[in-house]
Amino acid sequence: MWQELMVRLYRSLGVNDRDIVQLAFNFSLFPGAYTLMQAAESLGATLAPSATISATLQLKIMQDFRSTVLATTPAFALHIVAAMERQGIRPGDLHLRVVLVGPEPIMEPAREHLETCLQIPVRVLYGVAEMVEPGLAGECMAKNGLHLAEDQFLAEIVHPVGGEPVGPGQEGELVLTTLGTEAYPLIRYRTGDITVLHEAPCVCGQTTARIRPILRRTDNRVSVRGIPFYPEQISAILRSIDSAVADFRLIIYLRHGIGERMEVLVARTKDREFPSDTRASYLEQIRSHLRRTLGLGARVQLVEDDQLPMEGLIDKTVFRNLSSHYDLP
Amino acid sequence: MWQELMVRLYRSLGVNDRDIVQLAFNFSLFPGAYTLMQAAESLGATLAPSATISATLQLKIMQDFRSTVLATTPAFALHIVAAMERQGIRPGDLHLRVVLVGPEPIMEPAREHLETCLQIPVRVLYGVAEMVEPGLAGECMAKNGLHLAEDQFLAEIVHPVGGEPVGPGQEGELVLTTLGTEAYPLIRYRTGDITVLHEAPCVCGQTTARIRPILRRTDNRVSVRGIPFYPEQISAILRSIDSAVADFRLIIYLRHGIGERMEVLVARTKDREFPSDTRASYLEQIRSHLRRTLGLGARVQLVEDDQLPMEGLIDKTVFRNLSSHYDLP
Repeated sequence: MWQELMVRLYRSLGVNDRDIVQLAFNFSLFPGAYTLMQAAESLGATLAPSATISATLQLKIMQDFRSTVLATTPAFALHIVAAMERQGIRPGDLHLRVVLVGPEPIMEPAREHLETCLQIPVRVLYGVAEMVEPGLAGECMAKNGLHLAEDQFLAEIVHPVGGEPVGPGQEGELVLTTLGTEAYPLIRYRTGDITVLHEAPCVCGQTTARIRPILRRTDNRVSVRGIPFYPEQISAILRSIDSAVADFRLIIYLRHGIGERMEVLVARTKDREFPSDTRASYLEQIRSHLRRTLGLGARVQLVEDDQLPMEGLIDKTVFRNLSSHYDLP
Repeated sequence: MWQELMVRLYRSLGVNDRDIVQLAFNFSLFPGAYTLMQAAESLGATLAPSATISATLQLKIMQDFRSTVLATTPAFALHIVAAMERQGIRPGDLHLRVVLVGPEPIMEPAREHLETCLQIPVRVLYGVAEMVEPGLAGECMAKNGLHLAEDQFLAEIVHPVGGEPVGPGQEGELVLTTLGTEAYPLIRYRTGDITVLHEAPCVCGQTTARIRPILRRTDNRVSVRGIPFYPEQISAILRSIDSAVADFRLIIYLRHGIGERMEVLVARTKDREFPSDTRASYLEQIRSHLRRTLGLGARVQLVEDDQLPMEGLIDKTVFRNLSSHYDLP
């Protein structure tokens, strides 16, 4: 079913067996990469799965293979257009027809920047790891919300606190029930994603409900390069290493547009000895523990208690450097 | 055909639709990872493609998914058994039945170490990127050479210099001709790999010719983490950045058994200005150029002319630290 729904999304964007689909995703722990791959394959398209190589090599593959479809994260797409500019590659030098972005949300200014630089449409996919990722919903060429696979999912929009249904056209939490899944059915699964449901038919002719692109969540779950986790996990990891950790902050930001990075600011009780010899090996211990447990590298800094930022945009542990979230020029 | 040949190799190792195949490969620029994946899928096996995550996470996935087959590089397999030891995980805590290794060659002591630690067979796959990777040849459970897909390839063994056929059972260069490929036929393709052909039937019952595992090549092509290149490419990159580069050495080694690393020692003509401001930014420029062009990170050092090592094991530019090539305890 995963493949079928993704095939449908590809088709609604005009992707067919004459396309060359370049997949620039990290294939570790991001199952969506495989869904995008297998669906493109079952469409009969040619695949150029480039995974996590540099933007320069991505552009070389794009030119050598004459890729017509690029699927990647919004951040990496921005990085690729920055590399094009540096290398003097113009949109006309490529054969791209459309760019698909996911699983991270994309802000409209970033999409506009990509569309201006590449001179082609950029379209958004949506998925939920527990259900079908990424074939659950996606934009058609009309860019008028993400078409939801309503034959496979019953969608409701509820109040994120009370759980009661909200009125038509109102913002709330997306709740999904699987209709066709046998081995792993989910009933009224709360996605944690805040959106609006539109039931009017789309100008493209499809009559399925559409959702607004998801830019907010009800909980504090964060996702770095497609790997979702909760700040509580960071807290548990820090305390398992050092009982003297008093507080911490998690900062998620974009460096050079390459992808999301995370930084952990740690404040610890004074005058307690480090669990390892030196400050440097202590920080390295935290770094390697985070990397081994979450599969993500992090910059770790030890700061004074009063140097911790006070309030984050989502909650007190998570800060997103929104102003530079998309490294626009 | 790629998939079919790999399915055949899986079958000869007893892999079937009840297996859970964990693929710990870098999916960037290594097409073999996809072949292994698609073949396992077409067998009906369950897939746990873990790609390039830490050994700790690999072991967690191995335990959570009850993986029965692990396919990875020899170096990473060694790294996984080292992590098992550190974490006190015993072979009986896992459900593995067999480990498949490729595309790098594995030395017998390393294989024995893996088999002792894991208490299961470790089997070798062989492929040629230009033909079928990695389904070209592979060991059966008898471990008596790699069975070659002779219905798809005509194999000859020739003298690596003169090109004349060598006698039966003699060492020489493997030359292959495709028999079934339509879109991309290759006639007498010189693989550059030195091996011996055995035509006697195997004790496993198969009658196809077998080749000895490949441990040497005729040329100076090297491969780091599955990405093949020639030292000449490094030379061209260095000289494109800095015309004052007098000589260089390429050193390939294993660090902590995680995978092959490369180090480039650069000697440059004295008293010429760096093409960038400082020594540090000069080295960073070389590093980033190598990474962008080859898709591989490298350690780069600037050394005096007389500090360059004199002779490498393969040629003067390439040194393999063979003694610690496999990080055995």
